[in-house]
Amino acid sequence: MGKKNKQFVEKVTAMEDDFAKWYTDVVKQADLVDYGSVRGTMIIRPYGYAIWENIRDVLDRKIKETGHQNMYFPLFIPESLLQKEKDHIEGFAPEVAWVTHGGDEELQERLVVRPTSEVLFAEHYSKIIHSYRDLPKLYNQWSNVVRWEKTTRPFLRSLEFLWQEGHTCHATDEDAAEETNKMLEVYASVCEDYLAIPVLKGRKTEKEKFAGAKYTLTIESLMHDGKALQSGTSHHLGTGFAESFDIRFLDEEGKQQPVHQTSWGITTRLIGALIMVHGDNRGLVIPPKIAPTQVMVVPIAQHKEGVLDKAYELKEKVAKVARADIDASDKMPGWKFNEYEMKGIPLRLEVGPKDIEKEQVVLVRRDTGEKVFVAMSELEATVEKLLAEMQHNLLERARTHRDEKTSVAHDFHQFKELLESKLGFIKAMWCGDQACEDKIKEETGATSRCIPFEQEQLADTCVCCGEKAETFVYWAKAY
Amino acid sequence: MGKKNKQFVEKVTAMEDDFAKWYTDVVKQADLVDYGSVRGTMIIRPYGYAIWENIRDVLDRKIKETGHQNMYFPLFIPESLLQKEKDHIEGFAPEVAWVTHGGDEELQERLVVRPTSEVLFAEHYSKIIHSYRDLPKLYNQWSNVVRWEKTTRPFLRSLEFLWQEGHTCHATDEDAAEETNKMLEVYASVCEDYLAIPVLKGRKTEKEKFAGAKYTLTIESLMHDGKALQSGTSHHLGTGFAESFDIRFLDEEGKQQPVHQTSWGITTRLIGALIMVHGDNRGLVIPPKIAPTQVMVVPIAQHKEGVLDKAYELKEKVAKVARADIDASDKMPGWKFNEYEMKGIPLRLEVGPKDIEKEQVVLVRRDTGEKVFVAMSELEATVEKLLAEMQHNLLERARTHRDEKTSVAHDFHQFKELLESKLGFIKAMWCGDQACEDKIKEETGATSRCIPFEQEQLADTCVCCGEKAETFVYWAKAY
Repeated sequence: MGKKNKQFVEKVTAMEDDFAKWYTDVVKQADLVDYGSVRGTMIIRPYGYAIWENIRDVLDRKIKETGHQNMYFPLFIPESLLQKEKDHIEGFAPEVAWVTHGGDEELQERLVVRPTSEVLFAEHYSKIIHSYRDLPKLYNQWSNVVRWEKTTRPFLRSLEFLWQEGHTCHATDEDAAEETNKMLEVYASVCEDYLAIPVLKGRKTEKEKFAGAKYTLTIESLMHDGKALQSGTSHHLGTGFAESFDIRFLDEEGKQQPVHQTSWGITTRLIGALIMVHGDNRGLVIPPKIAPTQVMVVPIAQHKEGVLDKAYELKEKVAKVARADIDASDKMPGWKFNEYEMKGIPLRLEVGPKDIEKEQVVLVRRDTGEKVFVAMSELEATVEKLLAEMQHNLLERARTHRDEKTSVAHDFHQFKELLESKLGFIKAMWCGDQACEDKIKEETGATSRCIPFEQEQLADTCVCCGEKAETFVYWAKAY
Repeated sequence: MGKKNKQFVEKVTAMEDDFAKWYTDVVKQADLVDYGSVRGTMIIRPYGYAIWENIRDVLDRKIKETGHQNMYFPLFIPESLLQKEKDHIEGFAPEVAWVTHGGDEELQERLVVRPTSEVLFAEHYSKIIHSYRDLPKLYNQWSNVVRWEKTTRPFLRSLEFLWQEGHTCHATDEDAAEETNKMLEVYASVCEDYLAIPVLKGRKTEKEKFAGAKYTLTIESLMHDGKALQSGTSHHLGTGFAESFDIRFLDEEGKQQPVHQTSWGITTRLIGALIMVHGDNRGLVIPPKIAPTQVMVVPIAQHKEGVLDKAYELKEKVAKVARADIDASDKMPGWKFNEYEMKGIPLRLEVGPKDIEKEQVVLVRRDTGEKVFVAMSELEATVEKLLAEMQHNLLERARTHRDEKTSVAHDFHQFKELLESKLGFIKAMWCGDQACEDKIKEETGATSRCIPFEQEQLADTCVCCGEKAETFVYWAKAY
């Protein structure tokens, strides 16, 4: 039976051997997901969902602190509504699910299961916005969305995923631009300060921007295998939807003006980033700030008198400063060690008869494997210190890794060579012509990830065509 | 323009004149919902969603405290999977939405947009449960669900709604029965202790039970118009799904046994109950414990020196003991009074130049309209006291109302007369035969709401057929 075999934890594939296999081994063995019965869907299991709840709670707090309000729109979009914004429908039509029947009846108009909700927000905004006094409108929604993807992988690309989508309306282009930036910074802070994932901030090229946007800002992170992951986007929508949906307001001079909009989102994809940035061959490594359990107490020789009592006592002690749990089941300690390493729990606390005698415990860090003996009297302080150190270390380690995998290419030959020898970010100049972007993608598989806010003059000529360069771009193969 | 007209708050229809119209007026004018573009769907606006978030947070805490874990299942159910449990598919098939196309392709198998997730949980449980050590499994999901209803009303009955659905597996029938009871008690506590809605607890008849359940427990509440609302249900599923989906475990004697299951849910419908139990002709009345804003500060003559500063200072003071907000916009105080009465905010704090002179403020209770002058030095304590009193008063008032509208019927003639003269709960004996239940529904429109846990021997004969009575049942016309 499955459970019995688990007593001898199945090894995961080494990431050096097959990164994709390592990833799916880890998401399954750490009990993050199971596959749904519809191709490409996933069941987010309790441990995976608890991580999502922690990410959501952090971000939801920040969304509210920046003045936004949550609301909820319907799941279904009438086909005619989706078609109102031309670029938008072109971008999304190929990958939507269609509802054609309700009960026994065929519907007069087909419904789309929302792939995103711009048009629903737009229609609502056109009804509730009348005057400059109604602006800004700062709304956000937490929901599920569906995109009919051909190839899928848990968290990274699935038919259905969970996300938040912010949608805002402003009186001026500048206000919308400020909002677009502000929310990108919020995302960057969630990634770096909580998920310990360093990000590059920049703007997408025209080719890579959101369907219907004026421009798209993005945060890009680098996975352990050297591939990039778009980790959050913030779109300045300009007045495109406002024109199509007639979202206008009377300005202070009494003139009708279209609103300026933004939208921005992050998804359960971030859990995929978490796995691929911090994980190792023993499984997950979860940054303390978002770990559902930060300290797992494992009693040693728990049948001996006093051990379990002391272990529970220590768990309560630790619970004052951290999210603590105890595994007092009759499984072997070695089994428990493997299980909680696989789950990436930041600290393991071991306590047995000898430790009790010496009034000490053993703390083992998941990120470094470091083992320290700690006097019981100093337990809380040490736990707090180690969790903070681990949080810091994970971010620095990931940053070092990313920087090591970031190279500069001066010409196309070098670009190709670098991509083959050392997958990662390539910094290279670009002329701004989509033809070059297409050619790079076609010949190397790398896409433009972002035009970083912090520009450097790496060279004067485009890495592809050799013509005059306009901007410096980060390129990478990406998920 | 809509916003301008709102300066003179539109009156809502009096509930005595047209209760249904009063209801829809209130949900619209209190900015709880707007209608979605697909018939029968609703947009839950920020104020409505904030109320839902508070209900959800209270219940989510209780769900976790009772040992349950959250997780998330896919939205889509393959047709063949839904068909595995016969009673279940019969109950739900007429009211589901069907996805038939993904992108440009017609699907080989149609997908159902989940109306509830028993079959998804069942399939997953069959994979992860192997031994008695794996039990109980106590899972819960917060999600949207879709039911293709013909007639709809915001919150009460809509094509899509938000809810939580708990699904658990147990080793014995008794354990499942205990869980079924426990979660009904949790729901009753959320209703009574937070929403201030008194509930009747009992069991549904066979006719009214959940499709696929062994039996269904329910909490029933009474709306202001005398109609009942099913406010939460908890189902003992027995082993029906376990047999259909082969969810078995090895018991301690090494024998294969089917698991015993439960499921239970509450929905955004509770917001409808809130409106119809506490609301009045000036709008909503929100119980303090779940009010997004508990105290609204309204400055009087705010252009006068010092008023706004003092108002903000008082708001900060109140914020230490309650969720407080301030409306410092340039709208007239009278407009603000109407607006926040419509929104049902428990306490209004008025402060103007004269109050400042006297170092006092005015507090106005939403439930009673009572106006009290309070020394600024006693503000926090008074706010706490008044909010607690209001919370208590709302529950007692609703209980009194319900009891006044509850009558005993001894024969069918009296039953009909009571229903016509005074809509409400009717207590009457029943023989247990579905023929009588059908007849009562057909001739009076009333349905059996529950067989209450607290039985009384009202008479010896069935109110309908006059044969030997088996149980006492609450009957009512219902939403």
